[in-house]
Amino acid sequence: MCGTASPASINKSSLPSANSNGTRSPTCSSDHVLNLEQGDPAVFESYWRKMGDRCTMVISGSQLMSYISDFTNICWFMEPEFEEAVRRLHCVVGNAVVDDRYIVVGTGSTQLYQAALYAYALTSPGGPEPVSVVSAAPYYSSYPEETDYLCSRLYKWAGDAYEFDKNGTGPYIEVVNSPNNPDGTLREAVVKNRGDEGKLIHDLAYYWPQYTPIIRLADHDIMTFTFSKSTGHAGSRIGWAVVKDKEIARKMSKFIEMSTLGVSKDSQQRAAMIMGVLCDGYQNCKSANKSDDLFFEHSRQIMAERWERLRQVVERNQVFCLPKYPKQYCLFSGELIEPYPGFAWLEAKEGEEIDSQKVLRGSIKVQGRTGRRFGVAEKYVRISLLSNEEVFKEFLERLSTIKSMSSNGH
Amino acid sequence: MCGTASPASINKSSLPSANSNGTRSPTCSSDHVLNLEQGDPAVFESYWRKMGDRCTMVISGSQLMSYISDFTNICWFMEPEFEEAVRRLHCVVGNAVVDDRYIVVGTGSTQLYQAALYAYALTSPGGPEPVSVVSAAPYYSSYPEETDYLCSRLYKWAGDAYEFDKNGTGPYIEVVNSPNNPDGTLREAVVKNRGDEGKLIHDLAYYWPQYTPIIRLADHDIMTFTFSKSTGHAGSRIGWAVVKDKEIARKMSKFIEMSTLGVSKDSQQRAAMIMGVLCDGYQNCKSANKSDDLFFEHSRQIMAERWERLRQVVERNQVFCLPKYPKQYCLFSGELIEPYPGFAWLEAKEGEEIDSQKVLRGSIKVQGRTGRRFGVAEKYVRISLLSNEEVFKEFLERLSTIKSMSSNGH
Repeated sequence: MCGTASPASINKSSLPSANSNGTRSPTCSSDHVLNLEQGDPAVFESYWRKMGDRCTMVISGSQLMSYISDFTNICWFMEPEFEEAVRRLHCVVGNAVVDDRYIVVGTGSTQLYQAALYAYALTSPGGPEPVSVVSAAPYYSSYPEETDYLCSRLYKWAGDAYEFDKNGTGPYIEVVNSPNNPDGTLREAVVKNRGDEGKLIHDLAYYWPQYTPIIRLADHDIMTFTFSKSTGHAGSRIGWAVVKDKEIARKMSKFIEMSTLGVSKDSQQRAAMIMGVLCDGYQNCKSANKSDDLFFEHSRQIMAERWERLRQVVERNQVFCLPKYPKQYCLFSGELIEPYPGFAWLEAKEGEEIDSQKVLRGSIKVQGRTGRRFGVAEKYVRISLLSNEEVFKEFLERLSTIKSMSSNGH
Repeated sequence: MCGTASPASINKSSLPSANSNGTRSPTCSSDHVLNLEQGDPAVFESYWRKMGDRCTMVISGSQLMSYISDFTNICWFMEPEFEEAVRRLHCVVGNAVVDDRYIVVGTGSTQLYQAALYAYALTSPGGPEPVSVVSAAPYYSSYPEETDYLCSRLYKWAGDAYEFDKNGTGPYIEVVNSPNNPDGTLREAVVKNRGDEGKLIHDLAYYWPQYTPIIRLADHDIMTFTFSKSTGHAGSRIGWAVVKDKEIARKMSKFIEMSTLGVSKDSQQRAAMIMGVLCDGYQNCKSANKSDDLFFEHSRQIMAERWERLRQVVERNQVFCLPKYPKQYCLFSGELIEPYPGFAWLEAKEGEEIDSQKVLRGSIKVQGRTGRRFGVAEKYVRISLLSNEEVFKEFLERLSTIKSMSSNGH
């Protein structure tokens, strides 16, 4: 090759970070809107920066070029190293059964949710009618549109699972999101079991020790998880499902094949490495008692502090209330601990009619997501608590200036 | 952090390559089936290995963590470095207009094909009926199932565009795959223009100089491309669309948001770097005349040699025939050159009834894909020419032992 060789690698300074570019994360000057609508997990960035080179991924130009990872696996596009890392991570945390279960990798848990709908709908006894998809309100705001955007004849969004339990008929799929986005509650299925007619998807995106006590080893037919919320690496678009039934795992893999012909190997390998470093911390350091160096302890500490600061502001100005969560015994830490959800689910105290999203946007330029999007009243608003510290601090400062809703709102 | 630090990077020896593992690519021992059904682009691996560290991607543990790349872009999950690299690559090659066009990144061109169907269907005047999706036979074998697997009410696969031109009615989307997979021909739209009722997707996955003369600067409403076929990096699942209309680009981005909430940033950055190194070669070395070091010249040379060897074997044993392609003037190289498609489209000479896929599988243990999957007769079979050299050589050796179809076939 002639000419001067260009630099071999993209070094840190040439790749964007959440702090270096205004278009990439909320900015903090007081006349800017603080965007806390998405759950962008910037809060975890500082931990991984501290880990330095141990988490640095190196891929040469000739690696990972094939479509295929392992033709002997039902999920033929899954890197063996990724599967191994996922199994190890669940064993370290103890949050889900993985022995004798199939792992299916997806382009984030968004894709796996759709793969699960597809797999269940194909095995449903429903005949020509689309299977009803339900979830207890307040439900994750993206379920309705992820279910309906292609106007599938296989399945359709049917709203709140409580309503369906009372009045719904026919085959259904219930999505159980636990801890629940937006309100952080630990959940069980709502629709009373109707035998073969009902299928369950457990969306366990937030069932990790920084957000919640690990109250049991989860063991359900389909459980989905995501790299975005477990370690905070949302940009890699990596999720996985733990699946009991072989035919369901096969159909989910087939869905991903038809949807995207596999999942980025670069990101699968990066996820495997980062999960590996996380697990090494636990398996090498049990006796060292330097828990601040361990990912989940470090992250739970930050979330606990944020919740304490948030509750102080909310209690002081008496405009909103926040859910109260019971302490529960955490199998992972061996302690009684509180949940520290990734979102604040704020409810306006003054009257049913207040549009809390509008109030926050209008009075303190904070962008949250209205309760309407989650299937409940607009007196609720969801605010991300996963921003970086600078943005979180600015949010609390702005929130502390709110005095009364009725004068700002309608 | 306590304990011994684990190695900072995954080095080459610990990542799989196409040659090191039997489950990852076809093996060559004579009792094994040679799988040439997929177009896995292993042929380009040796070039990128030669490039050494110049194409090595380095990502630290704290980079690329956000969902968001640039909220000011319609395609808010697209890395600016990726968009810039795509525009530069098209400028260097001269195969597609990119000025005043929108770029949309996808998880491979598979996802962009579906995004294009969605965007067109939403703007179709069709009313309650699904829009018909057609492509001239032989058409890419995945179009039917990628169109129909979710049983959408927005669009449906309607088969061969020639048939639709004669007998079809109503709104339609025609996919023009040029050069065409499986048969390598350069194509134009088939359905006679019916004004607003017809929309076109140009799938230009193979419109790169190693496969075909670049006969014009393509300029169509939606053009899709893929990292898998341009440089051979299929494992990264990166594709892009070049789109004329802003609202179509917006709807395509919305589709990708709902389908996978973005596209792996790790892979977008890797693609940007590899495209950058490729372009540097052209822009630094115009006068150096070391064309073997330039990606497209190097790769076309390999493809030309493979086609010459393949034609010799096919002509010698008189069992199949291959398409003949006219030489055309290539704007990129400034020469009259032949197409060298990534697939051999073999047609059995003896009779209409022969199942060529079955014959190849039964007599020489070569797995191709039957013409039936492409909407034509089973006397046709598609064989990938993009394997590594060892596999290609073994394929030619096996093919040269075939004497007559009728004795092997029915």
